[in-house]
Amino acid sequence: MTHEIAVIPGDGIGQAVTPAAVEVLQAIDTADFEFVRGSAGDAVKAETGEALPQETRSIAADADATLFGAAGETAADVILPLRDVVGSFANVRPARSYPGLDAVQPDTDIVFIRENTEGVYSGIESEISEGVTTLTRVVTEAASREIAEFGFGYAKQNGYDDVTIAHKANVMRETDGVFLEAASAVGDERGAAYDTALMDALAMHLVMRPEEYDVIICPNLAGDVLSDLAAGLVGGLGLLPSANIGEENALFEPVHGSAPDIAGEGVANPSAMILSAAMLLDHLGYDEEGDRVRAAVESVLASGPKTPDLGGDAGTDAVTAAIVDEL
Amino acid sequence: MTHEIAVIPGDGIGQAVTPAAVEVLQAIDTADFEFVRGSAGDAVKAETGEALPQETRSIAADADATLFGAAGETAADVILPLRDVVGSFANVRPARSYPGLDAVQPDTDIVFIRENTEGVYSGIESEISEGVTTLTRVVTEAASREIAEFGFGYAKQNGYDDVTIAHKANVMRETDGVFLEAASAVGDERGAAYDTALMDALAMHLVMRPEEYDVIICPNLAGDVLSDLAAGLVGGLGLLPSANIGEENALFEPVHGSAPDIAGEGVANPSAMILSAAMLLDHLGYDEEGDRVRAAVESVLASGPKTPDLGGDAGTDAVTAAIVDEL
Ligand SMILES: CC(C)[C@H](C(=O)O)[C@@H](O)C(=O)O
Ligand SMILES: CC(C)[C@H](C(=O)O)[C@@H](O)C(=O)O
Repeated sequence: MTHEIAVIPGDGIGQAVTPAAVEVLQAIDTADFEFVRGSAGDAVKAETGEALPQETRSIAADADATLFGAAGETAADVILPLRDVVGSFANVRPARSYPGLDAVQPDTDIVFIRENTEGVYSGIESEISEGVTTLTRVVTEAASREIAEFGFGYAKQNGYDDVTIAHKANVMRETDGVFLEAASAVGDERGAAYDTALMDALAMHLVMRPEEYDVIICPNLAGDVLSDLAAGLVGGLGLLPSANIGEENALFEPVHGSAPDIAGEGVANPSAMILSAAMLLDHLGYDEEGDRVRAAVESVLASGPKTPDLGGDAGTDAVTAAIVDEL
Repeated sequence: MTHEIAVIPGDGIGQAVTPAAVEVLQAIDTADFEFVRGSAGDAVKAETGEALPQETRSIAADADATLFGAAGETAADVILPLRDVVGSFANVRPARSYPGLDAVQPDTDIVFIRENTEGVYSGIESEISEGVTTLTRVVTEAASREIAEFGFGYAKQNGYDDVTIAHKANVMRETDGVFLEAASAVGDERGAAYDTALMDALAMHLVMRPEEYDVIICPNLAGDVLSDLAAGLVGGLGLLPSANIGEENALFEPVHGSAPDIAGEGVANPSAMILSAAMLLDHLGYDEEGDRVRAAVESVLASGPKTPDLGGDAGTDAVTAAIVDEL
């Protein structure tokens, strides 16, 4: 069976790390992929006026899964509609530290399960009168239940014991109240153990004692901020993959951006993108292959060539070749 | 001149640390205070049905400044209206590490200037239909300008070079768009140097390189979360004071909560509360006295008795006495 994979490198280092991930997928001989390339981002906007052309949307919609690199100024114009195109309701963001790498907190292994459709990402904004603006934050019981079902299921399937539900229901009483109640109800129905945590206090605890957390189920913006915080704990965005999971489709992207400061220099760290490809493998049912890719990345991080962001002086190609070698 | 100070200990360790701060203020012989006690929090709610009785509101409204300890379950019902009663538009939260204390990032010295009236703290929420809820996030140009004026002024007055404006205007285009634009305009008008940062990326950078930041001007929730994150960097909430500043009145409170787990044991760390009293001294024009209190706290943190949260075994009273001794 051949899987059709949409490949959207985007801007900046997306152009360098996306081919690296494709190379890794091609090296997996137990799975068969056909890659269809789409364009998106600043460059295509400059050319065509659109950051995410209709053709690219269709490619992503029709594919079995999409690999997306990064976009520059137009990041939000690309990634938010793409998440929508693939119908993703769950954004899965593992943040873990690796032996042999400098990390603020070397004992971190947390998976953020971020609600991917609601909250302050509704897009409903207006200027009510001059200088007075509003945004409508939307939280529904249905989406809250759905992300919680996904999160508790993920924890169980991956052998994680601790589930934490993040919220700010002491201030956002109705909206995060619904999130907290719906997510807690799912935990209770499943007889699962879980904690709840105010997102502000959680930010502090994550910095001080990340080893106490496994899976954190979050509203959209909380997941955005807390997962970046966790990236800081483990050594930066260069290591964090993510999966946007829908009922029938999915999109895989590194958490990092297009890094215009180092774009084109051949030194971008391909790890986050390659780990995103590993999540794609899992998603398509190639769990063993996903594990192999993760093991290869881990081994190269531990004792192989490193890009400058990790204190090394190797280039993207050398690191990618080392990972492919390890497979 | 006698200054009338409202004193609202609240719940849990608020009952222990608030008297400690009063003791410190009483030990300042160059200023004269009259203390008026008000009650608020879980206990008074259990008794009277109200977490913040009208009488306490009046006491805070009429005083020259208020010291508030902490509240338990009712924290939001107490602190949000109290911030409103004193008309505070700016929440000032310094987060710094101290020599001699364990810290995740020992080179942290950041002051968060948090907008204190708007954003998702509007209180405008409703259940639109069953299981569908909304919250109206409000951002005005006026409040955004006001917090920025305050923040840039604070940076200048306190000799801080780097000002950062936090936002999420790539997603909240209208609302944080106004915040970002108004705050940037203030910086430009003042000819001040400043950076802008997406709050998610900022969370990561703060964890990795806090030494690069001085003053961070934030929307309300961003300030809530990022200041707690910074508390984690410097060793926990036991060290963070805060000031809620209005045109004519102000409220001073530790960033920590009521800590029910250790309440009544006599071991609460009074540092955050005493540092809040130092901010009260600054606010009333006693800058030199404020500095003296900070120096005393710092000296005790460096080589005096420590409470258990800092790895010591001293009680609140012993630490307070040591600080008063140093004055
Ligand atoms: C680019 C931006 C819209 C996006 C988000 O806020 O989700 C990014 O920060 C991320 O986390 O993927
Ligand atoms: C108790 C809560 C309403 C409050 C807030 O969100 O402002 C607290 O977290 C704080 O930071 O002072």
